[in-house]
Amino acid sequence: MTVYNFSAGPSALPKSVLQEVQDEFLSYQKTGVSIVEMSHRSERFIAITEALEARLRRLMDISDDYAVLWLQGGATLQFSMIPMNLRTTGRFAYLDSGTWSKKAIADARHYGDVAVVGSSASSNYRELPDYEGDGETADYLHLTLNNTIEGTRYTMLPDTGIPLVADVSSNILAESIDVSRYGLLYAGAQKNIGPAGLSVVIIRRDLIVDRDLPSYLNYARHTDTVLNTPATFSMYVAERVLAWVERTGGVAEMERRNREKSARLYAYLDGSTLFRSLVTGDIRSLTNIPFTTGRDETDRAFQQFAEERGLIELGGHRSVGGLRASLYNAMPLEGVVRLVEVMQAFEQEGYDVSHQNI
Amino acid sequence: MTVYNFSAGPSALPKSVLQEVQDEFLSYQKTGVSIVEMSHRSERFIAITEALEARLRRLMDISDDYAVLWLQGGATLQFSMIPMNLRTTGRFAYLDSGTWSKKAIADARHYGDVAVVGSSASSNYRELPDYEGDGETADYLHLTLNNTIEGTRYTMLPDTGIPLVADVSSNILAESIDVSRYGLLYAGAQKNIGPAGLSVVIIRRDLIVDRDLPSYLNYARHTDTVLNTPATFSMYVAERVLAWVERTGGVAEMERRNREKSARLYAYLDGSTLFRSLVTGDIRSLTNIPFTTGRDETDRAFQQFAEERGLIELGGHRSVGGLRASLYNAMPLEGVVRLVEVMQAFEQEGYDVSHQNI
Repeated sequence: MTVYNFSAGPSALPKSVLQEVQDEFLSYQKTGVSIVEMSHRSERFIAITEALEARLRRLMDISDDYAVLWLQGGATLQFSMIPMNLRTTGRFAYLDSGTWSKKAIADARHYGDVAVVGSSASSNYRELPDYEGDGETADYLHLTLNNTIEGTRYTMLPDTGIPLVADVSSNILAESIDVSRYGLLYAGAQKNIGPAGLSVVIIRRDLIVDRDLPSYLNYARHTDTVLNTPATFSMYVAERVLAWVERTGGVAEMERRNREKSARLYAYLDGSTLFRSLVTGDIRSLTNIPFTTGRDETDRAFQQFAEERGLIELGGHRSVGGLRASLYNAMPLEGVVRLVEVMQAFEQEGYDVSHQNI
Repeated sequence: MTVYNFSAGPSALPKSVLQEVQDEFLSYQKTGVSIVEMSHRSERFIAITEALEARLRRLMDISDDYAVLWLQGGATLQFSMIPMNLRTTGRFAYLDSGTWSKKAIADARHYGDVAVVGSSASSNYRELPDYEGDGETADYLHLTLNNTIEGTRYTMLPDTGIPLVADVSSNILAESIDVSRYGLLYAGAQKNIGPAGLSVVIIRRDLIVDRDLPSYLNYARHTDTVLNTPATFSMYVAERVLAWVERTGGVAEMERRNREKSARLYAYLDGSTLFRSLVTGDIRSLTNIPFTTGRDETDRAFQQFAEERGLIELGGHRSVGGLRASLYNAMPLEGVVRLVEVMQAFEQEGYDVSHQNI
């Protein structure tokens, strides 16, 4: 049985990449040494690091005005490092579009005054906040460009004179992002880039200031140098994933595929009498699609029904429940076609079964 | 040609573990999903996390009075997190025994007053500092239990009434450590535990205070819970490495082997007319053995000579130069026997060659 993994992260990676990694796992490039045994300062590993950065720069059209940093601690550590490193006035503007925004806001409050310049909490985050325009004196305006849990994405950016900072953990490389519009972009790797334990920060060089910060927490100490041992295996796999993205047609082709996949699922959800999407309109995420039957027992019954058919990790985030399908770059169209088939089958037979059980 | 990897980290891992990882890389436990694609909150991954912690507790005899945290950012991020989290008086005592101590001291200064209560800088760190006894009012006393770069290890601990905090990155699981004597132990994984990108903190629970710190940087937020996506692949491999340590005889057997391996190399160095060890006496590290011919050109010639014979990563740390052999748990005795053979051969033929080149 083919297994399709709809996990929100860590999540599916391209099969051909996994095969490459397996093939050379005991002896990287015939060196007799596994990639996980290689010094991060060896010539071979430095070549991987350089290729990784070059591929990301090509794929996202990142100019030399920006530095690319490969860090650890996930997006969560960036919730602290961003305000620490970008602090000038000590005033930070945040848009509150859901769970991850709220976490970013809570951490930023440790380093200055946070102005929440727009929140969609009143819609239970089914909409995106409007920017209320009063953040112009802040050091930056932070937004969560794609909301992994709530299934929303910004298609318009707030018009502001201060640097935009965006969490792109769940949509980096999955749709085109105009890097030049941002001061800083950051992402955990474990969705569209590679294995967990790696994060990437793309930062405009004029925002990097060597502040009075301890070593790991200081962006300046990671710029154009390797401060300490990085997440070498995750970087190696990421380089292979980015090679796959490049040979598959780049971010434009990824976006085309993600639009096609998500459109299939949204079309089914919009026509279903059992399931429904939680988000409407053009703010629907291309990568994270929460849905529900409206009843917890039926949602759980469907999750079980789907698992028995090889469709795994369809549960919603533990903070909100319900169901969710994450359709990152490595999810083939066939996985979505199969998901829709299984939802249709459940709508006909499984739904009855679950109702009988109640 | 068998390759022996003497890297100081990331470094050699047990071949049988690498084989296991390769075998199941495409489908973990026949799930149809790679370990790198699995959610950190899935039942299967939680089972790995639990097994990893249970193994470490058994191997190091860690009581329930201690929490075990699996973090990212290496020992370097702990240089900041330790003073941040253990700060009560804001006075910290540090022993300065080399490069990594100095880095830990520099980061701690951002969070309070650091008293360097002993330094062996005057011996160029070929000795260990004596504790000068004036740290009794500090929040903790920090030491680097094994000095990876300088090749020294503490065999006696300072006698003090304040919590001891030790960096055990290069000797954890390689020699027995009495956890009950410490307030906190921390280590990067990439030497004796598993792949890079993972660090472990073993902390006495009474030292964990939920302070006014942002989420990732607060030990309390990592205690008995998984705050955010951890370095899943490194944790998975670490669990397999610890299983290997357990079935091989535990830390006592690792220490016996490391004593045997290092004794072989020290005995050769002490008898050589060309090479010499930089450290003497009972403070010699069991895991990291710096040595030199006393001439940079000859050191480089030997490194080349050894590489041609499959003995790699014998260069000293970039900050000090010279040569270094790291003999962690996964280095078999045969690797050391081979190293000594190659050193003997160089002493006879290669040395002449390198002198002719000068």
